[in-house]
Amino acid sequence: MRLLIIGGSDAGIMAGLRARELDPDAEVRLVVADAYPNFSICGIPYHVAGEVPDWRSLAHRTRADLEKAGLGLLLDHTATAIDPASQTVTVAAPGARSQALGYDRLIIGTGATALRPPITGLDSLGPADGVHLLHTMTDTFALTSSIEKRAAASAVIIGAGYIGLEMAEALTRRGLAVTVIEQLGQVLPRTLDPELAQEIQAELGRHGVDVRTGTSVGAVRRSPDGRLQIGTSSGTIPGTDLILVATGVRPDTTLAAAAGVPTGAGRALVVDRGMRTHLPGVFAAGDCVHTHHRILPEPTYLPLGTTAHKQGRIAGENAVGGDASFAGTLGTQVVRVFGRIAAATGLRDHEARQAGYDPLTVAAVADDHKAYYPGATPIQIRITGDRPTGRLLGAQLAGHYGAEIAKRIDVLATAISYGATVGDLPGLDLSYTPPLGSPWDAIQAAAQAWAAAVRTVSDAASAAP
Amino acid sequence: MRLLIIGGSDAGIMAGLRARELDPDAEVRLVVADAYPNFSICGIPYHVAGEVPDWRSLAHRTRADLEKAGLGLLLDHTATAIDPASQTVTVAAPGARSQALGYDRLIIGTGATALRPPITGLDSLGPADGVHLLHTMTDTFALTSSIEKRAAASAVIIGAGYIGLEMAEALTRRGLAVTVIEQLGQVLPRTLDPELAQEIQAELGRHGVDVRTGTSVGAVRRSPDGRLQIGTSSGTIPGTDLILVATGVRPDTTLAAAAGVPTGAGRALVVDRGMRTHLPGVFAAGDCVHTHHRILPEPTYLPLGTTAHKQGRIAGENAVGGDASFAGTLGTQVVRVFGRIAAATGLRDHEARQAGYDPLTVAAVADDHKAYYPGATPIQIRITGDRPTGRLLGAQLAGHYGAEIAKRIDVLATAISYGATVGDLPGLDLSYTPPLGSPWDAIQAAAQAWAAAVRTVSDAASAAP
Repeated sequence: MRLLIIGGSDAGIMAGLRARELDPDAEVRLVVADAYPNFSICGIPYHVAGEVPDWRSLAHRTRADLEKAGLGLLLDHTATAIDPASQTVTVAAPGARSQALGYDRLIIGTGATALRPPITGLDSLGPADGVHLLHTMTDTFALTSSIEKRAAASAVIIGAGYIGLEMAEALTRRGLAVTVIEQLGQVLPRTLDPELAQEIQAELGRHGVDVRTGTSVGAVRRSPDGRLQIGTSSGTIPGTDLILVATGVRPDTTLAAAAGVPTGAGRALVVDRGMRTHLPGVFAAGDCVHTHHRILPEPTYLPLGTTAHKQGRIAGENAVGGDASFAGTLGTQVVRVFGRIAAATGLRDHEARQAGYDPLTVAAVADDHKAYYPGATPIQIRITGDRPTGRLLGAQLAGHYGAEIAKRIDVLATAISYGATVGDLPGLDLSYTPPLGSPWDAIQAAAQAWAAAVRTVSDAASAAP
Repeated sequence: MRLLIIGGSDAGIMAGLRARELDPDAEVRLVVADAYPNFSICGIPYHVAGEVPDWRSLAHRTRADLEKAGLGLLLDHTATAIDPASQTVTVAAPGARSQALGYDRLIIGTGATALRPPITGLDSLGPADGVHLLHTMTDTFALTSSIEKRAAASAVIIGAGYIGLEMAEALTRRGLAVTVIEQLGQVLPRTLDPELAQEIQAELGRHGVDVRTGTSVGAVRRSPDGRLQIGTSSGTIPGTDLILVATGVRPDTTLAAAAGVPTGAGRALVVDRGMRTHLPGVFAAGDCVHTHHRILPEPTYLPLGTTAHKQGRIAGENAVGGDASFAGTLGTQVVRVFGRIAAATGLRDHEARQAGYDPLTVAAVADDHKAYYPGATPIQIRITGDRPTGRLLGAQLAGHYGAEIAKRIDVLATAISYGATVGDLPGLDLSYTPPLGSPWDAIQAAAQAWAAAVRTVSDAASAAP
């Protein structure tokens, strides 16, 4: 059985490893566009920050590990065409003739590419000018070399999503003066409600990051002195050494679409929960495919590394004859911004309303552990539940690093996965010791607050004339 | 509506608060045996250690808070008899005449008392001799005063359960040389498998605690010089300044049993999931009642503060006309021992087998977060699942403080609560950022290891001649 995989990032590697685990006789080859298979893209900010000095340690597995696991790696190779009829993929490499590789099963893991927003002047500037995108190891090398060559003292980051903020921290740690520009009215607009985003924005401010929300960038240009000038809706930033564009990604579907794989939500490839495309024997996984959701009835587009890992593993299993199914995403995310953590899972209020629920979102604050034990810190909690059924739909947490916030969102994600009601949460038998929790964990206290708020709302409704 | 509650600890207080929350007109009175209602018994070790210098801060709520919430407190009052026929409770207080208090609903939250194991000489020694139990604030004051008066430099703790170990840490922090004696062959015998207990025992050793497992205490006596001598199965400990007995608790059911409430598992009071006893209008909750379990078909006895909180709240709700139900325990526990954390939930292998399952327990080790990010530490994980159905039955974790182990056990407890299979775990959409996790969280990696082990076992079985 010849399994061909296009892509050497999370989805492709997971697919290959899983296929070989289940079928050690499968011939598995990966077409990898660069020389960096299986790198942790999520780790790039920590390398740029200097916290992970050696970029090589960002590899989840070394090339030798992968080859030992039976993966044939075609590095620096680009797939240029898929021919489903002859079951071949045309592959090109610098300085070599194109070749056609046959497959019995094909997995497409082409990922996503960083968005270039429509900003005047942006398209004519690049790494040589100090203008960067950040999605690959090559991008990373370009950025760090730019910082060094330009002896950069300042940077402007366009976009206050999680990558924008992680990079704001990274460049600050590296000694640059950082400005973050966000078109929407808050940081982390796709992740958090404004009330919690406020906490994170304040933390950025405490570390000297100049955050400008509600500000759009109209134009960028390179001044004669080599510095970069940025025109924004609230005035001009006269000169900065670096610009980092972090405004999201779009699925890289060119190759698959040309071969006839239809696209759907977010213009990503359509697959079923077994990661099968419409083409026989052809699977796709990761940032290039649309994302089945645990709550939403229709697929959405939520590219995340965790999801790519899961989808890749399923594609790999099914490619060798399995019948695994992707249970769906909740868009669970966590981001560390200096000493603060923000995390979210499931639907926010407006998303739930859009999906046909009658949501109520209730805010609560509870300590991460018993206040009498030193070091307790407050966790800001927002619980979104469906009023008529009580179903837990989503949750957001923000608080201090060390407050075990990431795993608390995981408890909530797990509960949502099984259709929990908010009212179930206080009944969960969660662990307690005073240095690490409370007899009612913070999330249970928040669930009680939600239930009390629903009662108050109902009482008010029934008391209304 | 007159609600009378016997007991001012977790169950009683939660019951009273919940009753008043739902029915602000209810007259709620609590008969509290001492002057310390609503104290965090779980916090005592941290006060003894000196980490919580003021014992007053161990109160979950102050007396004023409780009274403001509408709870009438009869402090230093002892309930001596319940008469279900006349719906009265006889109450005695030092220097006052006994009185009969009428009730419409009664909640019994008499808790548990510390066990005194059958050790020769033990019964004739007490706090004045430096021999202590530790279950109440009064016990706490006796212990701290003993440490000071005797200028104690050494202590022997009998029992290596979680309280024994927390106190071993506490007394070590306080400067005492501590020996822990445990009859069974490992520390935390009721919580962890030996493989993980080893980790915790090693941590105690690193901090100078002399742990003697597989050792029973035959006799204790006071030497003429006032020091304490302990005869054990592996020799005599010639002299120590203090002995702390931490060998567990038994439910305090005398009062309720005399009134006709039957006892069941662990000789604890029988209640239904609504915390109703057999007596009309009489509820019971907390350490004095048997414990409904999420997996085991029959109630067991698992006295824990978290459970007492839940049960008390349910008793309070139902006492004022509600119909809440206790979803059941999983025996979820976490304990910090110096720089290590041990946590467990659900059934261990032998418990599962006893309950009729065909369990497989698989060990795994996974880092708490990406190894490339500084500070990653390994988590020892044991997953117990039912072989034929794949159902997740239990889990144990041990590792470093700061590795978010407590909340990881909570994720597993939540999954078990909803009947998850081990195979579900890798599909959970858990959060990930390199400083706090991995694309497959440690518990997901362990679940994959379990599934692989089941496959190996099945393959071996089918390959057998």
